[in-house]
Amino acid sequence: MFESAELGHKIDKDTFKIEVPKLRAELLDVQDDVLQKKEFPVVILISGVDGSGKGETINLLYSWMDPRHISTLAFSAPSDEERSRPYMWRYWRALPPKGKVGIFAGSWYSHPIADRIAGNMRRLEMDQQLDDINRFEAMLVNEGALVLKFWFHLSKEGQKTRLKALEKDPRTAWRVTKQSYERLKTYDKLQEVAGHVLRVSNTAHAPWIIIEGTDDEYRSLTVGRIVLDAMRKRLAQQQRPQVPVAPPLVHAIDQKNVLNELDLTQHLAKKDYERELAKYQGRLSELVRDPRFTENHSLVLVFEGSDAAGKGGSIRRVGGAMDARQYQIVPIAAPTEEERAQPYLWRFWRHMPRTGRATIFDRSWYGRVLVERVEGFCAEADWLRAYAEINDFEHQLVAAGAVVVKFWLQISADEQLRRFKEREDTEFKRFKITDEDWRNREKWDEYVSAVCDMVDRTSTGLAPWTLVEANDKNFARVKVLKTVCDRLEAALKIDSNGK
Amino acid sequence: MFESAELGHKIDKDTFKIEVPKLRAELLDVQDDVLQKKEFPVVILISGVDGSGKGETINLLYSWMDPRHISTLAFSAPSDEERSRPYMWRYWRALPPKGKVGIFAGSWYSHPIADRIAGNMRRLEMDQQLDDINRFEAMLVNEGALVLKFWFHLSKEGQKTRLKALEKDPRTAWRVTKQSYERLKTYDKLQEVAGHVLRVSNTAHAPWIIIEGTDDEYRSLTVGRIVLDAMRKRLAQQQRPQVPVAPPLVHAIDQKNVLNELDLTQHLAKKDYERELAKYQGRLSELVRDPRFTENHSLVLVFEGSDAAGKGGSIRRVGGAMDARQYQIVPIAAPTEEERAQPYLWRFWRHMPRTGRATIFDRSWYGRVLVERVEGFCAEADWLRAYAEINDFEHQLVAAGAVVVKFWLQISADEQLRRFKEREDTEFKRFKITDEDWRNREKWDEYVSAVCDMVDRTSTGLAPWTLVEANDKNFARVKVLKTVCDRLEAALKIDSNGK
Repeated sequence: MFESAELGHKIDKDTFKIEVPKLRAELLDVQDDVLQKKEFPVVILISGVDGSGKGETINLLYSWMDPRHISTLAFSAPSDEERSRPYMWRYWRALPPKGKVGIFAGSWYSHPIADRIAGNMRRLEMDQQLDDINRFEAMLVNEGALVLKFWFHLSKEGQKTRLKALEKDPRTAWRVTKQSYERLKTYDKLQEVAGHVLRVSNTAHAPWIIIEGTDDEYRSLTVGRIVLDAMRKRLAQQQRPQVPVAPPLVHAIDQKNVLNELDLTQHLAKKDYERELAKYQGRLSELVRDPRFTENHSLVLVFEGSDAAGKGGSIRRVGGAMDARQYQIVPIAAPTEEERAQPYLWRFWRHMPRTGRATIFDRSWYGRVLVERVEGFCAEADWLRAYAEINDFEHQLVAAGAVVVKFWLQISADEQLRRFKEREDTEFKRFKITDEDWRNREKWDEYVSAVCDMVDRTSTGLAPWTLVEANDKNFARVKVLKTVCDRLEAALKIDSNGK
Repeated sequence: MFESAELGHKIDKDTFKIEVPKLRAELLDVQDDVLQKKEFPVVILISGVDGSGKGETINLLYSWMDPRHISTLAFSAPSDEERSRPYMWRYWRALPPKGKVGIFAGSWYSHPIADRIAGNMRRLEMDQQLDDINRFEAMLVNEGALVLKFWFHLSKEGQKTRLKALEKDPRTAWRVTKQSYERLKTYDKLQEVAGHVLRVSNTAHAPWIIIEGTDDEYRSLTVGRIVLDAMRKRLAQQQRPQVPVAPPLVHAIDQKNVLNELDLTQHLAKKDYERELAKYQGRLSELVRDPRFTENHSLVLVFEGSDAAGKGGSIRRVGGAMDARQYQIVPIAAPTEEERAQPYLWRFWRHMPRTGRATIFDRSWYGRVLVERVEGFCAEADWLRAYAEINDFEHQLVAAGAVVVKFWLQISADEQLRRFKEREDTEFKRFKITDEDWRNREKWDEYVSAVCDMVDRTSTGLAPWTLVEANDKNFARVKVLKTVCDRLEAALKIDSNGK
């Protein structure tokens, strides 16, 4: 794996001086094309052994390209903010939008490698994290990103030589610390761990590019050329390749499905409703103030449902039980320009609550497999692969302590018609009904198919769907509140038993 | 995940009787199209809870389709043969060729699930196995296979009811055993484990299809329809989708590479050669008879190299140190018709040695990224994804105890020319030189690129490449033998230290 990077690659300084101006001009040119087209982001990972020239190379890329459209992201120990969220959250936040270049100095690979070398992580744990990383990178590439993963390598001797050279030069001596020499001692261990990590994550869509770091000119010119060549090839790509996906399934031959089997006649009388509402709001209010929640968990609520099914009303009843400083409601409409320039899950990652907090999504990432599918806003292959991506995403939330509760509020077609008309007839409700609602209604059956597929493929043990019979608003609101309480209690009890 | 499969799906017997003849005719039709076109195999996995009708459904598919072109593969405890090979070996062997249907009753999922329920496998271990499975299925799909994974589900009540019904009927009572009732006790545990397994392996290219198993007619007709529909859609597919792959890299700007840095002037005088040959042949002979080898390891040797580089001669020297009953030489030429109907790795899996044995490959699976790449016998995306697939494949071999030693024998262009001419001039060597050899020689530079990429991407810690300077045959043969001995010793020592 590292054989080619131990050959003593080198180019002389004269050649370098001749080549650089040409390369710079070409890089600027192609960077501008990427920026104008805004079709894909360029994600560059710079990793490797200490003293192999990672920092210098990044600085050179800055000086060679237009720095206004590059961001460099260095990650050291996670901040408080970051620690209380899923491992990948900090990297998600930092992704460059389409058209821009993001350089990750130290990346999602840094921690698994460092933890493994320090003996803080078992191999199986690391392999699991690498599997998560592979899935994440596959998603990035499937969303169109150009991902370039560089690993700068030095032979053991090469590393010693470079450290000494850095030390000698007064301009760079400050960069050599005790830690640098410490790392020399773990060279063999690093090579072993890195060899394994690179093998497992050397995927066809995002392979590692191993560069010998010894000679500054060779390393810099090579990286520049590879970045140039990769951006050019990506720009020249006629169409985005799509992963093979299995086609959607035919529907149940007996026409039974999870929606039409719901008993929508269920209801709750006003008096019962008020009693139950008070009871569960009280319970919820206690649960979210319980230290077992505030110290270990967060709450992620997802509300999806037919138009006019009463999502807003249910959300207000849940919110009513919490302190406004503890939760945030995120209404999801069409994505903004900034959001469209990112993978579709990015705009949700932004809003993930930290430990002890709640986020309530009024519509969510499920738009991908609902409205985007039905309206044809994305290709079939895109929404078909979204199920697995969403499961991975929610699983990461749960792994980081989130309690994920997902509601689908279902009303009958008749009830929807009644509510639409009522809205049109009521002055203060008129803003709630649009032409789009009427158009969606015509696609009722297509939405039913989409919802059933969604439940089949994304109702998982850790993040199940709760289908809510919502013809009666009282019944629906209490079922929502009770479910939130039950799920929270289950999560907290599990903790208190130490399981 | 199982919600849709607990609705009490059912169709009446009359509908069934009307529908089946139509379905059968259509299934036979489409099966024949698949057979005639020979473009892809159909891989059907039937898994699920006990008593959910797995066996009945398989029998029905047999009666509905042409059984001459279906194979059913039931796997119980692994045989001796199987136990001494990698976990996936038994499934590889059983893959249906293009044009045929293979039904797996109990599949590569059975063992992880059973072991996990029985408490014999930790979750991280299972996740790692699932990751291997996901990669394996991705490879199958990328190679063109239609993969249908059925999971037959019963609610807890449904399972009891079905067991009682089976017991009552004298024709089926024999199928209900004590074990069946035992399994009822582990129902909840199975659901939990299966839920996790299904989530993790619910990939876009091979998603799970969950079927309620309670009603025979519903279950059978549904499976039949889904198989029919999937085969039709696959036949209608205009072109095979290709996974997104990163383009190949530009080459080292200083023109240094692992091949041209070899010192091909190295040689060994006849006397030294004879002494060294005897020494290492003796060492090898002892090593392969060592119980630490015969009981725990197998030996997989791969010989690749330029034409006329002396692979045959080296192989004979290695073979000469072993008992002919202990090893097998597998010369790889163009694939046979049978082999072309399988994923490209299939023909190598067939020959994997059992514990205590050796297989010597004279050319190998690396043909994919060498001759097939250079000659354009496969698409760019195919050979680009092969690197990771080959690494996975070799890693499975190593995980099962194989010592994998890979040689690239390199000669200079001049030396090759000399040997070609010598072959043409020598009566008994003339058969060794063909027009193809001369044609390959014209592509020397392209082969150099392919070899360098191959070493960069597939020389891993567990299965590194050894590049052999082969201008001098004596030197090359001794280096090969010594390397085999060193690698074997390292493997045996590691074991004897209990690491």
